[in-house]
Amino acid sequence: MNKIAIDKSLFCLPWTQTILGTHLDGKVNFMALDWLTRVNFNPPMLGICVNKQHASHAAILTTKEYSVNVPTVEMVEVTDFTGLVSGKRVDKSKLFEVFYGELEAAPMIMQCPITMECKVVEVVSLPTNSFFIGEIVGIFSEEKFLTEGKPDVKKVNPFLLTMPDNRYWSIGECVGKAWNAGSGLRDQQKQNQGQL
Amino acid sequence: MNKIAIDKSLFCLPWTQTILGTHLDGKVNFMALDWLTRVNFNPPMLGICVNKQHASHAAILTTKEYSVNVPTVEMVEVTDFTGLVSGKRVDKSKLFEVFYGELEAAPMIMQCPITMECKVVEVVSLPTNSFFIGEIVGIFSEEKFLTEGKPDVKKVNPFLLTMPDNRYWSIGECVGKAWNAGSGLRDQQKQNQGQL
Repeated sequence: MNKIAIDKSLFCLPWTQTILGTHLDGKVNFMALDWLTRVNFNPPMLGICVNKQHASHAAILTTKEYSVNVPTVEMVEVTDFTGLVSGKRVDKSKLFEVFYGELEAAPMIMQCPITMECKVVEVVSLPTNSFFIGEIVGIFSEEKFLTEGKPDVKKVNPFLLTMPDNRYWSIGECVGKAWNAGSGLRDQQKQNQGQL
Repeated sequence: MNKIAIDKSLFCLPWTQTILGTHLDGKVNFMALDWLTRVNFNPPMLGICVNKQHASHAAILTTKEYSVNVPTVEMVEVTDFTGLVSGKRVDKSKLFEVFYGELEAAPMIMQCPITMECKVVEVVSLPTNSFFIGEIVGIFSEEKFLTEGKPDVKKVNPFLLTMPDNRYWSIGECVGKAWNAGSGLRDQQKQNQGQL
């Protein structure tokens, strides 16, 4: 066997790059955010992982609201900047034009093709980070980023982060259709009556 | 403003495709898994979202262990198959050659360039899904997928899922260096003494 154990602290998956929006002491703040996932199907919920040292952590604990904004490849530089400086020391409130949906403390970035506003329903406190579980109150986009009313990844043009090599990546080519690519194997399995 | 509210149940982010490995009634089982994220930095923890209807949900509640396996683009067909049929009806235990690390009920896929074994430390029960928080007990790879001891995304060659268009995507081109691309803006901000 060629398998070797590697450092457990490695990150190992590409993460979609987003920007977290909060209100910090009443002022708009932003932070680069990579560790997030849908955590419930219905109602739609989005969970985010924030280090307890970050200004955004205190902000969310106070307001119980946040936004998640998906930047495009053209926004690599400014997105990276939001992760380089802390809202404790630098005012990032003027970096972007913002708009609001239903929530008062979930500032969304006008320039981002997809934005979501979330209301915290549960906080899971872990050793170095908190995992905030938020119900998605609203999702916003523009016609030009949609195909048949749904976000089209090639129009949205988001980017990914890999760690610990710390590189950003564009989305590549379509390599298959989900809930479809494996249907030949399913048919074969049915023919074999479960002998796969 | 051109912003429009779109369906809140849309998924809106590309997710890295993985395969969840469990023991279901003592037998190896696999399921396509997309909703997952790191949830704690130290110790390293990986959280996964599983629908309460899935066989894998019952499996993890019983064993409190699972594996997360990162397939390559070449494995699109078989990965998709794991999401098309339920372990309640179809025996998926022979789909892959497996190996184990420390845990007894976290079968890892030999064919996958990156595999992780996780031990559940917390279960967050949400309306339709559970979010399982697992400590990463081990990560395994092979020399040929690493550069300087760390996974190299271009060697690993994973793929992404977008919903609801249900398409798989390869990783594209490097579009920037993280914690670096924004350093020009940071220098400018320092010069402007916070007037950005």
